[in-house]
Amino acid sequence: MVTINKNYLKLPGSYLFSTIAKKVADYQAAHPEEKIVRLGIGDVTQPLAPAIIDALHKAVDEMAHAETFHGYAPDLGYEFLRSAIAKNDYQDRGCRIEADEIFVSDGAKSDSGNIQEIFGTDNKVAVCDPVYPVYVDTNVMAGRTGEYNKERENFDGVIYMPCLEENGFLPELPKETPDLIYLCFPNNPSGAAITKEKLQEWVDYANKTGAVIIYDAAYEAYITEEGVPHSIYECEGARTCAIELRSFSKNAGFTGVRLGFAVVPKELEREGVSLHSLWARRHGTKFNGAPYIVQRAGEAVYSPEGKAQLKEQVAYYMRNAHYIYNGLKDAGYSVSGGVNAPYIWLKTPKGMTSWEFFDYLLETAHVVGTPGSGFGAHGEGYFRLTAFGTFENTQEAIRRIQAL
Amino acid sequence: MVTINKNYLKLPGSYLFSTIAKKVADYQAAHPEEKIVRLGIGDVTQPLAPAIIDALHKAVDEMAHAETFHGYAPDLGYEFLRSAIAKNDYQDRGCRIEADEIFVSDGAKSDSGNIQEIFGTDNKVAVCDPVYPVYVDTNVMAGRTGEYNKERENFDGVIYMPCLEENGFLPELPKETPDLIYLCFPNNPSGAAITKEKLQEWVDYANKTGAVIIYDAAYEAYITEEGVPHSIYECEGARTCAIELRSFSKNAGFTGVRLGFAVVPKELEREGVSLHSLWARRHGTKFNGAPYIVQRAGEAVYSPEGKAQLKEQVAYYMRNAHYIYNGLKDAGYSVSGGVNAPYIWLKTPKGMTSWEFFDYLLETAHVVGTPGSGFGAHGEGYFRLTAFGTFENTQEAIRRIQAL
Repeated sequence: MVTINKNYLKLPGSYLFSTIAKKVADYQAAHPEEKIVRLGIGDVTQPLAPAIIDALHKAVDEMAHAETFHGYAPDLGYEFLRSAIAKNDYQDRGCRIEADEIFVSDGAKSDSGNIQEIFGTDNKVAVCDPVYPVYVDTNVMAGRTGEYNKERENFDGVIYMPCLEENGFLPELPKETPDLIYLCFPNNPSGAAITKEKLQEWVDYANKTGAVIIYDAAYEAYITEEGVPHSIYECEGARTCAIELRSFSKNAGFTGVRLGFAVVPKELEREGVSLHSLWARRHGTKFNGAPYIVQRAGEAVYSPEGKAQLKEQVAYYMRNAHYIYNGLKDAGYSVSGGVNAPYIWLKTPKGMTSWEFFDYLLETAHVVGTPGSGFGAHGEGYFRLTAFGTFENTQEAIRRIQAL
Repeated sequence: MVTINKNYLKLPGSYLFSTIAKKVADYQAAHPEEKIVRLGIGDVTQPLAPAIIDALHKAVDEMAHAETFHGYAPDLGYEFLRSAIAKNDYQDRGCRIEADEIFVSDGAKSDSGNIQEIFGTDNKVAVCDPVYPVYVDTNVMAGRTGEYNKERENFDGVIYMPCLEENGFLPELPKETPDLIYLCFPNNPSGAAITKEKLQEWVDYANKTGAVIIYDAAYEAYITEEGVPHSIYECEGARTCAIELRSFSKNAGFTGVRLGFAVVPKELEREGVSLHSLWARRHGTKFNGAPYIVQRAGEAVYSPEGKAQLKEQVAYYMRNAHYIYNGLKDAGYSVSGGVNAPYIWLKTPKGMTSWEFFDYLLETAHVVGTPGSGFGAHGEGYFRLTAFGTFENTQEAIRRIQAL
C-alpha cells in the first residue's frame, strides 16, 4: 500500500492566491454588475514590449523550418541567454558572475520552490515574516519543519524574523542560528529595500555560520535609490554563501511567458560538495529547459530596444506605485514600500484584521488587495496593493478608497 | 552550517544523455571532418507543423496588446487546452476523464520527476529494467532508495523488473510487493508495446495491493496495432490506481517547446487523501503554469489541420523506424521495437558491452545511439536507436552500419 507525503497535510488551507481568486470569483458571481479592480496578485497588465514580440515571432519562424528548428535545449539554458544575463545583470554592475553559473528556468516561483531540494531535510530555515508563501510551504512539503501551530499561526521549527514598522521592515540577525536563510529584496510583500551595508552584514553572517542565503531579487528592476543593491553579489563574499534567484516576470512582463534563472557560484560548497554541481544535477534530471522561443524573448530583454522599452514599462508601473502611495497617505493611511518596489504596504485602519480589511475593500470599494496575514503572522494588520494594474484602474481604485 | 541532500551523492556519474553529449562533443572536436549521425537522444528533427506555427504567431500577437495579453495562467492549465485533451485523448477513446483531472505542465520529464513528491519516502518503488533513468534517479534524490550497488549496477531497495527477450520485454508481477510502480508503454527504451489484457493485469494488481501506477504514455501516438492501449484508463479500475503522464514532445515535436500533462483521477486516493488534491497543491505551490503561447500551440495539436499534419509527421518517423528495423535485420542484427514505438532495440553483436558498441559505432560508423546499460543493468548487451532523425540521415546511418 502506497503512503502519501504527510508533510503536505501540515499545510493549512490552500495557496494564498488561490484563496483570493476564489473569494473574488464568488463575489463577482453574486454581484455581476460590480466592476472589480484587482490590485491583489502581482500580475502585470501591460502587453509585452515590441522588441520581445519581434523576438518571439522570429523564433517561432525558426521553429517552422528544419534548418533552424530547435529541439531539446541545453541543460542550463542557451549560451546566448546565459551570456546576456551574465554580462548585463552582473558583469556590467561589477559582479563577478560567469555565464556557466547561470541556470535558466521557467520562472522564479519554480526555482524558489525547488532550490531547497539540494539541501538536507535536517536544516533549519529562516524566513522574514511576512514572507512570500512559497519559501515556507515548499520547506513544509519537504519535511524541513514541524507542525502548523494554530496559536502562533505559523510552523514549528522555522525561524521567523519579524519585519515590522519599528525595524523598517528589515529582518534582524536571529538569536537561533539558521542554516538556510531566505531573503527577498526589494521585498515582497512589504516593498522594503535593503542597503548594501545591511545586506553585507547578512553575507558576513552567513559566511561566519556556514549558512546559505537564498536571495530572491525578482524586483530589482524597480530600484530607484542609490545604495540599494541590485544583486547580492555586489556584497563581498557572497560567492561563498549565496544563491540568487531572478525573474523576467516583473521587469519584462513575463508572468505568462515564464522565464527566470538561478545563479549558483562555483565557489559555493558545503560539506565539501559543490552546490553548483548539485543544482546542475537537479536541472539535468528533472527539467528539460525553458522553451527556445521564450529564451529568445529573454535575450531580447537585453537588446538596446528591449532595454529602452522595458525601462518605460517599469516607469509606468512605478507611476502607479507613487499614485497609490500618495493617494493612501492623503487619505490618512500609514503606508510604506513603493519607492524601490512595485508593492505598497499599508496598515489596516480601525484595528481591522487583514482579512476583514480584504472583505471590507472588496465589498465597499470593489478593490482586491492581498491580506498581510496571508504572508505570515507578522503581516497581520497589514495589506498589500500592487502597482501592476493599469494607470486608469489604479486611479479608480484610489478614488474609491479615498471615498470610503 | 547548512547540510546538503546526501541522497544526490548516491547517483553515479552524470545524467545518461549529458554523458553521451559530452562523449560525442569530444569525438567531434578530435575529428572535425567526420559527419556524425545522431540517433541517440530521442530528440525530434522535423519542424513544427504549420497549424502549430500559426497558433504560436497568433498567440504572440495577443501578447502584444493589453486587451488580449495573458499574465499568470490558471494553476492547472487553461480550460481550452484541458478540455481539448479530455475530449480528444480520453473521451473520444471511451475513457472517462474530465478536464479538471488534467494538469498541464512544461513536459513529461518534469512530471515524471516531480510526481514522486506527493508520496511518502518509505514507499518501495518498482521499475522496469531497462528504464528511462528519470524515474529511478528522482526517487534516489528523494531518499526512497538505498545506496548504489556497484556489483549489481543498480540501487538497493528498488524492485527492478527485468524486461528481456525471453519475456517479450514486458515486466512480470514482482515477487516483492511494490508501492509505486512506474510503467512506460509503448516503452522507452525497448520500443515494446503492452496489450490491453496484459495492462489490465497490472491495474488489477495495483488495485488489489494498494499500489499506485505511474503510467508514462509519452509514445502513444506511435501505436499502429489494434489491441494496444493508448491510455491506461482504457483498463477497468485504472481510475483508482493510476496516474498517467503524457507529452507533446514526440507526437507534435515539442521537445523544444515544452508541454505535457498529468492525469490524476478524482477517485484516486490513498490513506484517505485525494492524490488529485496533493498534486494540485504541488502545482499551485511550485509551478506557475506553462506559457500561454505554448498552451495555445497545444490546443492546435487537436485542431483538424493540426491532427492531419501531425499524423503525417508521426508517419515520417515511423518510416524511419521501419527502415532501421529492416536494415538492421538484413545486416544480421537481432532487433525489436519499432512497430508501436519510435525506438529500435538491438542486441549488441559479438558479445560487446553496450558502451563498447557505443564507442565502436561512434568511431567506425560515426553514428550515435544510446547504450542499453545506460537504462539499467538488464539493458546491458542492448542498444537503442531512435527514429527521430531525418529520413536521409537514417538511411545514411543504416548504410554505414551495414557496411561495417
